[in-house]
Amino acid sequence: MSKILIVGGVAGGASAAARARRLSEDAEIIMFERGEFVSFANCGLPYHIGGDIQDRSKLLLQTPASFLARFNVDVRVMNEVVAINREEKCVTVRNTLDNTEYQESYDFLLLSPGAAPIIPIIPGIDNPLTHSLRNIPDMDKIIQTISVNKPEHATVVGGGFIGLEMMEAFHQLGINTSLIEMADQVMTPVDREMAGFVHQTIKDQGVDLRLGVALEAVEYKPTQSVANEDAGEDSDHQHLTGELALTLSNGDTLNTDILIMAIGVKPETKLAVDAGLDLGELGGIRTNEFMQTNDPAIYAVGDAVEEHDFVTGEQTLVPLAGPANRQGRMAADNMLGRQETYQGTQGTAICKVFDLAIASTGKNEKQLKRDNVRYEKVYVHTASHASYYPGAEVVSFKMLFDPENGKILGAQAAGKDGVDKRIDIMAVAQRAGMTVEQLQHLELTYAPPFGSAKDVINQAAFVANNIIKGDATPIHFDEIDNLSEDQLLLDVRNPNELKNVGYLEGAINIPVDQLRDRMNELPKDKEIVIYCQVGLRGNVAYRQLVNNDYKARNLIGGYRTYKFAKA
Amino acid sequence: MSKILIVGGVAGGASAAARARRLSEDAEIIMFERGEFVSFANCGLPYHIGGDIQDRSKLLLQTPASFLARFNVDVRVMNEVVAINREEKCVTVRNTLDNTEYQESYDFLLLSPGAAPIIPIIPGIDNPLTHSLRNIPDMDKIIQTISVNKPEHATVVGGGFIGLEMMEAFHQLGINTSLIEMADQVMTPVDREMAGFVHQTIKDQGVDLRLGVALEAVEYKPTQSVANEDAGEDSDHQHLTGELALTLSNGDTLNTDILIMAIGVKPETKLAVDAGLDLGELGGIRTNEFMQTNDPAIYAVGDAVEEHDFVTGEQTLVPLAGPANRQGRMAADNMLGRQETYQGTQGTAICKVFDLAIASTGKNEKQLKRDNVRYEKVYVHTASHASYYPGAEVVSFKMLFDPENGKILGAQAAGKDGVDKRIDIMAVAQRAGMTVEQLQHLELTYAPPFGSAKDVINQAAFVANNIIKGDATPIHFDEIDNLSEDQLLLDVRNPNELKNVGYLEGAINIPVDQLRDRMNELPKDKEIVIYCQVGLRGNVAYRQLVNNDYKARNLIGGYRTYKFAKA
Repeated sequence: MSKILIVGGVAGGASAAARARRLSEDAEIIMFERGEFVSFANCGLPYHIGGDIQDRSKLLLQTPASFLARFNVDVRVMNEVVAINREEKCVTVRNTLDNTEYQESYDFLLLSPGAAPIIPIIPGIDNPLTHSLRNIPDMDKIIQTISVNKPEHATVVGGGFIGLEMMEAFHQLGINTSLIEMADQVMTPVDREMAGFVHQTIKDQGVDLRLGVALEAVEYKPTQSVANEDAGEDSDHQHLTGELALTLSNGDTLNTDILIMAIGVKPETKLAVDAGLDLGELGGIRTNEFMQTNDPAIYAVGDAVEEHDFVTGEQTLVPLAGPANRQGRMAADNMLGRQETYQGTQGTAICKVFDLAIASTGKNEKQLKRDNVRYEKVYVHTASHASYYPGAEVVSFKMLFDPENGKILGAQAAGKDGVDKRIDIMAVAQRAGMTVEQLQHLELTYAPPFGSAKDVINQAAFVANNIIKGDATPIHFDEIDNLSEDQLLLDVRNPNELKNVGYLEGAINIPVDQLRDRMNELPKDKEIVIYCQVGLRGNVAYRQLVNNDYKARNLIGGYRTYKFAKA
Repeated sequence: MSKILIVGGVAGGASAAARARRLSEDAEIIMFERGEFVSFANCGLPYHIGGDIQDRSKLLLQTPASFLARFNVDVRVMNEVVAINREEKCVTVRNTLDNTEYQESYDFLLLSPGAAPIIPIIPGIDNPLTHSLRNIPDMDKIIQTISVNKPEHATVVGGGFIGLEMMEAFHQLGINTSLIEMADQVMTPVDREMAGFVHQTIKDQGVDLRLGVALEAVEYKPTQSVANEDAGEDSDHQHLTGELALTLSNGDTLNTDILIMAIGVKPETKLAVDAGLDLGELGGIRTNEFMQTNDPAIYAVGDAVEEHDFVTGEQTLVPLAGPANRQGRMAADNMLGRQETYQGTQGTAICKVFDLAIASTGKNEKQLKRDNVRYEKVYVHTASHASYYPGAEVVSFKMLFDPENGKILGAQAAGKDGVDKRIDIMAVAQRAGMTVEQLQHLELTYAPPFGSAKDVINQAAFVANNIIKGDATPIHFDEIDNLSEDQLLLDVRNPNELKNVGYLEGAINIPVDQLRDRMNELPKDKEIVIYCQVGLRGNVAYRQLVNNDYKARNLIGGYRTYKFAKA
């Protein structure tokens, strides 16, 4: 009989407990959670604040009682493991209700402590109107502040998942919102130009988006009025109301009624460090492929651990629910004598931003550049399903690949429909080791309401293979502003498109369908830089020109890629 | 300079023409189409009839003029190629407007003639109220009949893609509809029990669904009244109005106002046969992997050709748009000196039936049984995205795999959301040669609006691996009605579920959360056949029982699979 202790009762820990019981009826399983709640839907918290998920109880997936009944797991909430004695194989547990401590022995220990929000050291940041969002109590406090203070303006610092979701929640509640992000883009898993689609959506909704700006100081200005206790007001009231004066790195100031800090999370490693367990170079708990720490009796999973990057093989921190859940399951397998290995993380991620979805898998271009990995890229913008069937939306898709062997390096997509599907397809293809050559042959579901006979992915693969085979010479959006004297811009769209959606300064306009007759208007001693709206007609024009001995390049992803990169 | 003739101007033919021009500016390309239209959206025809696609012109993707302008392709509509002279490398073309004939020579000939609706030899079938739907004129005739005759009742024979879509179109127009299918299920690419979800949806919409019934005779009863020409009525009118008396194989009769025959299509091979080109054993034009017929100067693509099944390697006929388009592109490559190979067809398919999607890829169980292929199967029914976020729908998913090596053999899904995505994931995984072991590790997009931390596919993979590893002993829905004396049915759901959704006759009920305390109520000398709603709680109960030395099996996919299999 094994005795298994689990530290942390969400995602990885809860998955491990359930799996361990299914494998062994007689294992003793105790799960410690320092908070009040186990197995809650942490990914749902912003949606309850914003009102999409009305019923708070829907976020509470399991309770200690339900865990006991179904899995015979002894769940101890408000019990914090404060020390590990590896020699004795026991832990010290503090009951946070009465502050008593006790010991509990183990055969196997699983650490699933998660990650904590990073709160930067900023003057004045510690005030009653500043919140982070990681768990149910955090959420409750934000809801209470909104309900009591009725803020007219909210500020979110950080343009990652939580930041974007909280921005949308505030906006949905009718609160004017500012989003402040130190980088030049939100949603760092995607590249800057793909984030442009998100920036445009955010601005279109009237949110005050400030990029490349950091929060430097906060001043808390409590209101003078105190709570009217005779009128039944909560005595908390006087502590909560007030406003914040924010000072930003660009010298701007901003008054706001509530501030959410969402600049990221860091692994909770104190317990592991104190016990002398190894950390990785990025500061997460180091494990082997079995999710085992350097102490063979201690496993670790979830946001607290460093993972192995599927593409580069390097260490990475990926605080996402999917890997945490699967790791928990595998750790339980291995504690009970199996040999399951975790096979690396691609970092597949998606975020809803108003009616837009933005998603990615694998490496992005920033990472590939930094790591000096050889790559090429393509963009396509094509309909989520047959464009003649109602409801089709443009999927803007970027694919990164090795130009020599065609190996998939990463993919990103933005759009109002079908974005999750395309990134899932790429996540599977990448994990399977497919090349862009093979992507041409993918046979995906097609009927007019669901796809196209040549899907987004097939089309991107066609473009990539054209480049690999030398059938297309690409030019990219980020080269367009630096053309030389020897290059000539040719816009092959129809004149009304130039008028309606804009065009590149200095371009001459010959619609693709007139090009064969008007080719003599073009010089043969210059390189013709062709563009259209999304790159498709540009390719037709490119092929005409090179087959007539012109020098030419085609703007991959067309004017649309160039334009949104500026957003 | 190559001279390329293309027979047929839709899908494969149109793709080939465009690709050929992009590769070669000086090739002479002539495309013959015996009909009036090229490159029309044949998959959209039922949706224009039903009204989802309002604008008929949206179905006309290209015209001869647009093909000429963009691709310098000489498109000759109303020109039918009636003979091939392989020795002289020329074809005989009949202008169907004036019935003149002429010769045209070729270096390469591409056959993309498509497939024709199968009209069975049934007494009375040739009448003005009976239609098939393959092209724009077919569609126009159906619309005219609806508009002139204002049918109150329509009958569709055949439950494949076109049949189901036409059924929905009629229903959407407020016309009472009967759907008649000779097999015991609609949508033959999926197995009978998965078609149950479609059957239920069809019945729920009030459509008269008749399975296992064939049409045996048709009697056309024209109305006595003739067109009132003074009132401006079309003289066609008197020929069109009337009704049909249908006699069915089960002896039933049915009066209907319009009849659609949609029992399938057969390859158009007359031209190929007359020219002495080889056919395959299934009656399609035989090609090699380069899409080349036994005459190296003649290629063939699309619905008219036999393909190579990706899973079994055997010959197959897959009349779908995706393969046709990709084959056309590859044939053009190869005619112009490249070496592109078509890599087999999985038969990935999807159909919208009211608000339900039904889809599949790879082989189904019927085919595997017939071919004596070793297989196991799993079912899961799980939410399309996090169930606490609004809009989640159940995805009912079936996966077929090799129980020895875990190789994916096929997958099927039904549901109102996320069905296309799951089958696409499986289509990619299967094409990449992945196993169900590897599917456990897939890292798919997850945020509450889009998926779950453990996606449908991960969950199905967990179940499959439990079976492979011996952690689960499955029983399937089709064994439940034949239990022996030595087996005991155990329902582990809550009593109110039994009351609300039904249960299996003779089952005893112990909710899973009470099982640990009440296990002694169960006999150890019988095999306990456990079931719950979808199989998940059943697995928890199964593990408890076997870990306590009971003999047990768990109904994979639970009561839901069993119930819909009867629909």
